[in-house]
Amino acid sequence: MNRPYVFINIAMTADGKIDTFERKGSVISSKHDKDRVDELRAGADAILVGGKTLLGELPKLTVKSEALREARVKRGLTPNPIKVGVATSIANADILLESDFIKAGHARVVIFTTSHTSIPQLKSLRAHGVEVFVHDTPRVDLTMMMQTLKEIGVGRLMVEGGGTMNFELIRLGLVDEITAYLAPIIFGGATAPTMADGFGITHDSAIKLELIDFEKWEEGGIFLRYKLAGLA
Amino acid sequence: MNRPYVFINIAMTADGKIDTFERKGSVISSKHDKDRVDELRAGADAILVGGKTLLGELPKLTVKSEALREARVKRGLTPNPIKVGVATSIANADILLESDFIKAGHARVVIFTTSHTSIPQLKSLRAHGVEVFVHDTPRVDLTMMMQTLKEIGVGRLMVEGGGTMNFELIRLGLVDEITAYLAPIIFGGATAPTMADGFGITHDSAIKLELIDFEKWEEGGIFLRYKLAGLA
Repeated sequence: MNRPYVFINIAMTADGKIDTFERKGSVISSKHDKDRVDELRAGADAILVGGKTLLGELPKLTVKSEALREARVKRGLTPNPIKVGVATSIANADILLESDFIKAGHARVVIFTTSHTSIPQLKSLRAHGVEVFVHDTPRVDLTMMMQTLKEIGVGRLMVEGGGTMNFELIRLGLVDEITAYLAPIIFGGATAPTMADGFGITHDSAIKLELIDFEKWEEGGIFLRYKLAGLA
Repeated sequence: MNRPYVFINIAMTADGKIDTFERKGSVISSKHDKDRVDELRAGADAILVGGKTLLGELPKLTVKSEALREARVKRGLTPNPIKVGVATSIANADILLESDFIKAGHARVVIFTTSHTSIPQLKSLRAHGVEVFVHDTPRVDLTMMMQTLKEIGVGRLMVEGGGTMNFELIRLGLVDEITAYLAPIIFGGATAPTMADGFGITHDSAIKLELIDFEKWEEGGIFLRYKLAGLA
């Protein structure tokens, strides 16, 4: 396969939201779920986020548990996985460069962008050690990106959102697995983000999943693991 | 309690959608789930839908199983529950009157609307035996509606959507229980409807649920039953 093994991880409410309509990065996970996410991160070679998540939330994407980081080092890995950000355009590289996305955990950082990002911004990112790949397409070519990630040594790629990126990857057949934590709460909101946003597909083209694992947790949340079964 | 026992039933995709972005009333349920929904309907005194579902889908809302209808009659009930439609404005009563919503199953039909619906339209509905309640408010007052439903003999009210109605009822504290079938498919779509749409609420006001039942079904779907635990 000319790409990494790709798995999406999300925490969603019972009504399918991954954040409130305010999009402030609401915490949906339980303590138990956070530990699970930390283990998933520790088992990944890289963690990817899309443009809205990258530029809107500037997420750390580090492994929280010291024990898990040490275990990675013992396996000959860096303490934290590579951080991968995808954004059509980066208007102000300084905001990124001063954020936890770049600074936290001293991880290798890879950015995929397009020629919408100006040369000075690209230079600024590269001057700070960020590996930048510039696609000559209106938006980042996600299939090509996957090939690059494989080439730079990413065998297991974890995707942490948001809904637009998730949908694009699923639609393009670039996802092998989805793990979801279904929290016993409701946010509502027609504009609140969900696991898979974007344009959407018709009923006949619905993506089929295979449920391979599920579990009820003490706090009333449900853990689900699906394999992507391909297009209908 | 000055209202019926209210339960919402929905079928949703793994990414939280109750229809595709096309909003054509996509089938999400499995055969097993359809049988469950039929039993829920047979156990209800009335089935309610909001305006978009009422006017956009003109749903039948009848009990499909003859055995279940006969069992209702043996219990001294009508074969089908009362059909309840809620719509701020009904521009063309004829479309409703010629639809399965009114005609299928010879059920008692109750409509809640506002003075946005014209007198001739109201007359037309009433002339065909529809019981119409007109609220003198910008939108139907759902709390008052519940009181009326209780008064006309509705002890158990089943709500079959859509997302806007569900959200309003949940937000107003008028829902006791939610049953959901989570199908192993993905529709995607930022504009596709979800179990609870509307304006949405902030993280601090999130509605808390209590998971009281869950089951994995053969086809890979998950059945979930939640009790509403009140506002956070």
